[in-house]
Order: sequence, then structure tokens, then C-alpha cells
Amino acid sequence: MDEDYVARCAALALLLEVSASPKPGNVDRHHDFADTKYEHFLASAVAAYPVFRTAAADGVRWAQERRKCRVGKLIRAAVEESMRWQSGGNTHFGSFMLLIPLAAAAGASSDASSLKARSEEIMQRTTVEDAIELYKAFPRARVKVRSVGWLDVLDPRSQDEIRRRELTLYDVLKISAGYDAISRELTGGFKLTFKYAEIIKEKTIQAGLNAAIVRAYLEMLSAEPDTFVAMKFGEAAATGVSKRARLLLAAGCSDEELQRFDEELLRARINPGATADITAAAIFVALLSGLRV
Amino acid sequence: MDEDYVARCAALALLLEVSASPKPGNVDRHHDFADTKYEHFLASAVAAYPVFRTAAADGVRWAQERRKCRVGKLIRAAVEESMRWQSGGNTHFGSFMLLIPLAAAAGASSDASSLKARSEEIMQRTTVEDAIELYKAFPRARVKVRSVGWLDVLDPRSQDEIRRRELTLYDVLKISAGYDAISRELTGGFKLTFKYAEIIKEKTIQAGLNAAIVRAYLEMLSAEPDTFVAMKFGEAAATGVSKRARLLLAAGCSDEELQRFDEELLRARINPGATADITAAAIFVALLSGLRV
Repeated sequence: MDEDYVARCAALALLLEVSASPKPGNVDRHHDFADTKYEHFLASAVAAYPVFRTAAADGVRWAQERRKCRVGKLIRAAVEESMRWQSGGNTHFGSFMLLIPLAAAAGASSDASSLKARSEEIMQRTTVEDAIELYKAFPRARVKVRSVGWLDVLDPRSQDEIRRRELTLYDVLKISAGYDAISRELTGGFKLTFKYAEIIKEKTIQAGLNAAIVRAYLEMLSAEPDTFVAMKFGEAAATGVSKRARLLLAAGCSDEELQRFDEELLRARINPGATADITAAAIFVALLSGLRV
Repeated sequence: MDEDYVARCAALALLLEVSASPKPGNVDRHHDFADTKYEHFLASAVAAYPVFRTAAADGVRWAQERRKCRVGKLIRAAVEESMRWQSGGNTHFGSFMLLIPLAAAAGASSDASSLKARSEEIMQRTTVEDAIELYKAFPRARVKVRSVGWLDVLDPRSQDEIRRRELTLYDVLKISAGYDAISRELTGGFKLTFKYAEIIKEKTIQAGLNAAIVRAYLEMLSAEPDTFVAMKFGEAAATGVSKRARLLLAAGCSDEELQRFDEELLRARINPGATADITAAAIFVALLSGLRV
């Protein structure tokens, strides 16, 4: 697929994700956080555009000459551009981790049918250098992550350890896949991303795009305890939020109930960030396979 | 200025303009029109990104080799991309008319200080071909415009007439400048654009970006009767809206009063579109000269 086509789908996916409302617990067009505002997400989405284009171009070359995609380097570049263009802190770290390999896969694909297989391959062929680049990106974004033993992303010694053990980005993410949904997507064939892309496409026909995105987000939240919430508040909090989402959906999900759930999470500062990131990736895939606004 | 830098400022300007709320009478993050929704504006802003980059690249070559900028052709390209990526109809016609020559001027400038002079020059050097291209863009966008005699933009014979009379885009816009604020900007050195860019920069420091954009929009509306409103509802309606904005500002512009004004205009479908377009251009210039989110 054409590089500017891919970059437009990626930037638009981020814009549609952050705009969808109400998206319980997260920034949306009607809700800011204290430091990170809706506008910061708009600027971040646009800031990353040229990096998405480069990722797609890498994908084109990968398909033609089997030259490797610079997944780690481009995730870091997207994070750096985002931080340069807005002052709200970490907006899209998890989303960039998902969107960069997907953009490369789109560049390597003639249509959406091979997208899933391409993204898996691209992740499996990542290198030690990709892992190091990702580790360099973390301190830039001031992102909250769980630190597990020597894999502490904020300890520069862990980069030496990655080299010594010759771990690729794929290997490193295999380790964090145990407790992080983004890593699980990246090493498990983007299962949720592609599943919820279909749900978004279907629901858009019935209910319009905003409602479809909100619905997909809620269904994912109900089925998959958010790992970002688990890291910040513990497993029990994450499963509690999932259960709450399940009850809401079972009760018919009235606007009023949805608003109340949103306010509850916002008040407690429980932001299901991993679910939002995978929702953005799902919108990206839906756009790449023809969804239009 | 760098092409991707210019394109990012342009796309972000459109996003910030449509998001600013409440912006009486127009689509914003809290208000859709029946057919044209907020999401259509997001898609349109992203759709035009590659065209903004091309306009900036034209500007670079203009500065280096005096090769002419394809102003008319690129306005048409932006309109066509916008219509391809969203189904809400005309979102950004007037904004593209302003942003394309400004993007070319930014490409031709090493910094923002020469932006105004460059944009004037670029407009003055437009050609008959530019005028024809603009005329070809109108029917694509289903845009509402006043038709004055042989200049009827929806009558294909007017293109022959433009060629026969050898009118450049600048010449044609000089004629419509009598009743259209966008044409007036394009042939009068972008006076309001640069004036309100300064106002936005100042007010952002005091009150934040959203409030600054709303304030600039209201001040412009109070001082300059909206020519789009005048075309749709007559001069009296346009001056009435201006007077109403003036009273609102004089009375301190409380949130409540602002909301009421917004609802009033939305109910009457009075959308000051020209004011919104020039506001977008002003945000673009403010971003090009360093404003950050």
C-alpha cells in the first residue's frame, strides 16, 4: 500500500480513537486529564505522520528486497516527534509500539488480506538493535512501566544485558507478554487488534463510527483486564473494571450508565491505557481495510 | 522551512480550529451538523497532509529556482483528497484556499518573518491556469458560493471566459474580494490571518490554546461581518451576528452567554464559515512562528 495512504490511516486512527466519546477512564473529546489534554493527543498524532510514512516505506523495501524494517528505531522516532510537538507527556507510547510494525506491514502488503501475516513476520524478524532502540525510547516518554528484574527499562545496564544475551525485540516482548497486553499483541499475531477491527467495521454500519469505537473499547475492556490498570492499581482493580464493563454491557449500556462509569474511572484516575492503544490499532486496521468516515 | 514541518503545522491548524469549543455556529468537538460531523473534519485535515507537503515543496523550489507554485492545482488536489477521505461534503474549501499558498510561502521562507511577504508574492504571481484549476475544484466540493454574472463558478463556460480575458487567479479573486473575505485575504496580503495569529499567540499565554482560539474567532466575528453568512442569509444577518458578538465580548463573555450564542446560531443554522477558515489560517501562521500545544 502507498506510503502516504498508510500514514494517513495511522494518523487518522489515533485521532478517531482519542475523539471517541465517552471512552470510560480515558482522554476523549469531552475529557482532559490534568496534564495531558485532548489537544496534546491531536498534536502527537500529526507529529508522528512522517514516521508512519517511513515505516510504510520500510515495509515496501522489505517486500521488494527483503531489507529489514527498523521497527525499534521508528518507534523511538515516533515517541521523540510526539514529545517535540506537544508538552502533555506520554500520549501514544503503546499506540506507536503497535502502529509502527502495522504500518510497515501495510507498506509490505498489496491489500489488507496479507496484513496480519506480514505484521507477524516483521515482528519475528526484529533484532537486538530493535530491542535497544525501544529501551532508549522509554526514558524519553516518561512512560510508566513495570520493571521486572534485569529488564528494568529505566536502568541503562539492561541494554548491556540485552546485547550480552542477544535478545531481539521479539524476545524481550515475549518476556513482558506475561503482564503487558501490548507485548502480547506484538508477539502473538495482533489477535485483539484484528478481532476488534472487524467489530468496529460491523458496528459502524449499524451505529456510526463513534458508537462503534466506544462499543469495541467497552467489549475489549470487559473481556481483557487492562494491563496498564493492573500495573498501576493491581490485578484486582483491573479485573474489577472488566467486571463493571461486563455488567454495563449486559444491562444494555444506556448513555446514562456509560457516563457514570466514565466519571467513576476518571475520578479514581483509572485509565485503561492498554485498551485504548489496542483500540487505536484496531481502528488503523479497519481503515486500512476500507472503513471510511 | 522543512516540508513535513509545514505539513504538520497545516494539518494541526485544521484540527485545532475544528476542535476549539464553543465556536458559535460552527462544528466543534461538541457539535456536529446534521450531515457534516466533527469526524469528517478530522479525516479531511489528515487527507490533505500530502498536498500541504507538496505545496511546501513547491515553495522550496520557488525560492531556489523561481519555479512557480501550483496554487490552483494544489487547492483542487486538497479538495479532492478531502472528498475522497470523508463523506460529509464540504469541510475545508475556504481553509484550503488560504492554507495552500501559505504552505508554499512557508516552504519558500527560512523563518516566519518573511512569511507574509512571500505569501503575497506567491498570490500575485498566480496564472490563468491557477484560476481554471480553482474553478474546476468548486463543483467537486459542492460548495455554496455567490455567482456573479459570467463568473459563475458552477457554469463551465466561465472557464472559457477566464481564458479569453486572460485572468489570473489573483485577478479573479480581486473581483470576488468585494463580497468574499477569503478572496480579500488572498489578494490583500492575508491581513486578518496575520493579525489574528498574533492574537492567538498572546491569548494562549494568558488563557490556554482552546480559549485563545475561541477568543480570536469571536473578536474576528465581532469586527468583520462573516461573508459566508452574508451570502446565505443576507448582509443584515451577517452584521447582526457581528453586533451580537460585540455585545457578548463587551459584557465579559461568560461561558453561559457564549453557550447561548452558540445554540442560537446552531438552531438558525447560521454558520460563520469564512471566520472559521481565517481562524484556521491564523492558527497555521501561529504554529509556523513557534506556537506549541
